[in-house]
Amino acid sequence: MALKFVKREEDYSKWYNDVIARADLAEHSDVRGCMVIKPYGYAIWEMMKDVLDRRFKETGHSNAYFPLFIPKSYLSKEASHVDGFAKECAVVTHYRLKNAEDGSGLIVDPEAKLEEELIVRPTSETIIWNSYRNWIQSYRDLPILINQWANVVRWEMRTRLFLRTTEFLWQEGHTAHATRSEAIIETEKMLDVYAEFAEEYMAMPVFKGIKSANERFAGAEETYCIEALMQDKKALQAGTSHFLGQNFAKAFDVKFTDKEGKQDFVWATSWGVSTRLMGALIMTHSDDEGLVLPPLLAPIQVVIVPIYKSEEDLNAIREVANKITNTLKSKGISFKFDDDDQKRPGWKFAEYEVKGVPVRIALGPRDIANNQAEIARRDTKEKQMVDLDNIEIYIPNLLVEIQQNLFNRAKKMRDESITEVNSYAEFKEVLNSKGGFILAHWDGTPETEDLIKTDTQATIRCLPFDFPIEQGLCIVTGKPSNRRVLFAKAY
Amino acid sequence: MALKFVKREEDYSKWYNDVIARADLAEHSDVRGCMVIKPYGYAIWEMMKDVLDRRFKETGHSNAYFPLFIPKSYLSKEASHVDGFAKECAVVTHYRLKNAEDGSGLIVDPEAKLEEELIVRPTSETIIWNSYRNWIQSYRDLPILINQWANVVRWEMRTRLFLRTTEFLWQEGHTAHATRSEAIIETEKMLDVYAEFAEEYMAMPVFKGIKSANERFAGAEETYCIEALMQDKKALQAGTSHFLGQNFAKAFDVKFTDKEGKQDFVWATSWGVSTRLMGALIMTHSDDEGLVLPPLLAPIQVVIVPIYKSEEDLNAIREVANKITNTLKSKGISFKFDDDDQKRPGWKFAEYEVKGVPVRIALGPRDIANNQAEIARRDTKEKQMVDLDNIEIYIPNLLVEIQQNLFNRAKKMRDESITEVNSYAEFKEVLNSKGGFILAHWDGTPETEDLIKTDTQATIRCLPFDFPIEQGLCIVTGKPSNRRVLFAKAY
Repeated sequence: MALKFVKREEDYSKWYNDVIARADLAEHSDVRGCMVIKPYGYAIWEMMKDVLDRRFKETGHSNAYFPLFIPKSYLSKEASHVDGFAKECAVVTHYRLKNAEDGSGLIVDPEAKLEEELIVRPTSETIIWNSYRNWIQSYRDLPILINQWANVVRWEMRTRLFLRTTEFLWQEGHTAHATRSEAIIETEKMLDVYAEFAEEYMAMPVFKGIKSANERFAGAEETYCIEALMQDKKALQAGTSHFLGQNFAKAFDVKFTDKEGKQDFVWATSWGVSTRLMGALIMTHSDDEGLVLPPLLAPIQVVIVPIYKSEEDLNAIREVANKITNTLKSKGISFKFDDDDQKRPGWKFAEYEVKGVPVRIALGPRDIANNQAEIARRDTKEKQMVDLDNIEIYIPNLLVEIQQNLFNRAKKMRDESITEVNSYAEFKEVLNSKGGFILAHWDGTPETEDLIKTDTQATIRCLPFDFPIEQGLCIVTGKPSNRRVLFAKAY
Repeated sequence: MALKFVKREEDYSKWYNDVIARADLAEHSDVRGCMVIKPYGYAIWEMMKDVLDRRFKETGHSNAYFPLFIPKSYLSKEASHVDGFAKECAVVTHYRLKNAEDGSGLIVDPEAKLEEELIVRPTSETIIWNSYRNWIQSYRDLPILINQWANVVRWEMRTRLFLRTTEFLWQEGHTAHATRSEAIIETEKMLDVYAEFAEEYMAMPVFKGIKSANERFAGAEETYCIEALMQDKKALQAGTSHFLGQNFAKAFDVKFTDKEGKQDFVWATSWGVSTRLMGALIMTHSDDEGLVLPPLLAPIQVVIVPIYKSEEDLNAIREVANKITNTLKSKGISFKFDDDDQKRPGWKFAEYEVKGVPVRIALGPRDIANNQAEIARRDTKEKQMVDLDNIEIYIPNLLVEIQQNLFNRAKKMRDESITEVNSYAEFKEVLNSKGGFILAHWDGTPETEDLIKTDTQATIRCLPFDFPIEQGLCIVTGKPSNRRVLFAKAY
């Protein structure tokens, strides 16, 4: 713990890996591209899950569970879906191992070959819409509002912990509706749920918008997204909500009879966020001393570190600490009193700093004599002596303030990293010097987008909702454009 | 809903499937052996998960997540483990599909063959102990108390919804300890957690005991289990807790330095329950009218059905129902007020009966005039007129009473189905006529157990803790035995 971190500005990528390792969040497994999410990292993910799950239920959704495996033929049924997902995936071809006759160990039993290969789900539209066909006959069966918490697998060549792994955890909502407009309302509603979660809980400002055709989900008519900006000025797509039109209903022949007795295909949405949010959380707030967590997603919100020499000191401190923790408990604040006598206070200070615990209370005999405690906040590293009688009010207020400060700080950084440009030269110059989001006019064609991507690595993150519509000329082709779109290099 | 169920005594197996279908709990998917858990079934599973997860955390465990895939070579490292698990499993051999050159569709890309095949986890001891090797150096790193909620795959030839499916959901605890006795204490502690959960929440009486060698988990030194009895007098293993000794530590070379500086292998446990518990819950309580749920695991504990002809009636009923639901809400009781005007009250009565909702309140204009409501309990189907002023006390008491009654009823059935026998002839006679648990002396050898199994299909469910030690003679071989063991035909 005493070792210094690489600083963000020296090697951002190494810094990111170091934070994850030192805060004990996750690690690479021996299985290529798959990670182990360690207890402290998983505890943060569980808090994210709990909030999201509650919001999904409040917006009328139920959880369910569909098979891990998808028959190969299902993937081919939706033409664009197969291009997006069927290529890099884990393929189950056999269902038995046996001992080799030469004693060399376990081998795949060639007699146990599946008639049709099974794909480990990269996403579940196909298997779910295959079920929905049997569930939907009439408008009375609609809407279906289902969410699934699951693991999915996409065979990634380059992986990074949380940001891009072969297996990851996520939720995927899959809804079915009687009308186009109802499905669009659902798509937008879930985008709002994601944006509110990102801003209110993760303290991470996001832009809402629509993807260009190039970046659209394979099988969607329209992909809505939230986009955040990391401290290295690269963008990160934090959540997507897809209006699928009737594409999957047509692919899986899911029709319903409407109130007038007419048959039509069902309208669909799907929407998801994943353990990628952990990467976004880490990169939005953490600093050169380690992880920084917003209080609303911190497994431990307050840690109390006793500073003592004698057993007598410790007993006196414990008594005061008990009063404090009783107060915290009554207010629903999570805490830890760390009286491990194998570790020195300095070691503990560094440990909880690296783990991003929002508030640290240090308590020594002199503090108790003065009826006060030293309270340190992780976000600004400021310390303050606080009267013990005031702690009951001070701590809850401080947690609210930290949550707000983290959001404000991230928003300031993000807002300062948005640049309007009016020429391609300027675009490249800003991208290479300052980075961040670039607002520029674009002629709306995939060709121009591809050219910019090949040329600069920047992609269109979204056609943002938050900026005024404005006439202009495409920075590459000079063709007319009726809005600026948001470009950035992205994770 | 109007269709009559098959009765349990006519065709128990069909009855079981009918309950699941009619209560809308789950269904078979098109993927062989894999089920879809539908929202109402998943809501019950979520309640089970929540209680268990809280109990795991209260007993000091944290959740984490390990990879879905296990390299083939890992399975071979623990000799008996491989025999138990490596055979019938899903094998991933390739990581890419491509379009066939003849345009016939998607095919497995032969160039994307994995160097080493990956197995979809049937259980995670191997992948987890491979990680623990890097996590454990000293006694200070112990104990490790980790649980994982996950999906697992075992390629089953004959599947039944919830009871035996190729993919199922479960939790698996994996703990590491410095001493043998600490690991045994952990194994027993988690067995107690399972037994308490089964009895207090599922209202399902269980016997705790130890498995015979034949039925032991592949890789364990000792398997502890809880065994329940279903209404068809067949036993069901509801949870297992394994003392793994140093087997996996040796297989994966996981050593630690103890306080004296001496190196030793780490001691291990693992323990799990799965969606199989859903099958146990259904078969313990349900009746010829459908599902019966214990109140503590019912997604809807109380349903209110309005009985009305005019809109005016409905408004008056709604007013009274609001008062009732406010009371229920304040007491943390879940409820539904079903004012769907597309369905008749009779249809709703049948629907909530089949879904096992513990308490139904029917409210009509005459009831309101008399300041009363008709309250029906699902377990006994008794109805009672209750004064509206008393509902606040009546309903919570009734829920407690139903929970208790279901347990007592199941326990009475179970206890009446235990028979002591003293000869093999008697054993067979009881097994075929009465079924249930049979307490008999056994000489302790796998050979005798195999013979009985081949002969009668009955297996030793456990060496139970709940019966006195007693000297006797094996019913088959006449050799001395120092305890009766519990036999039954089992799921």
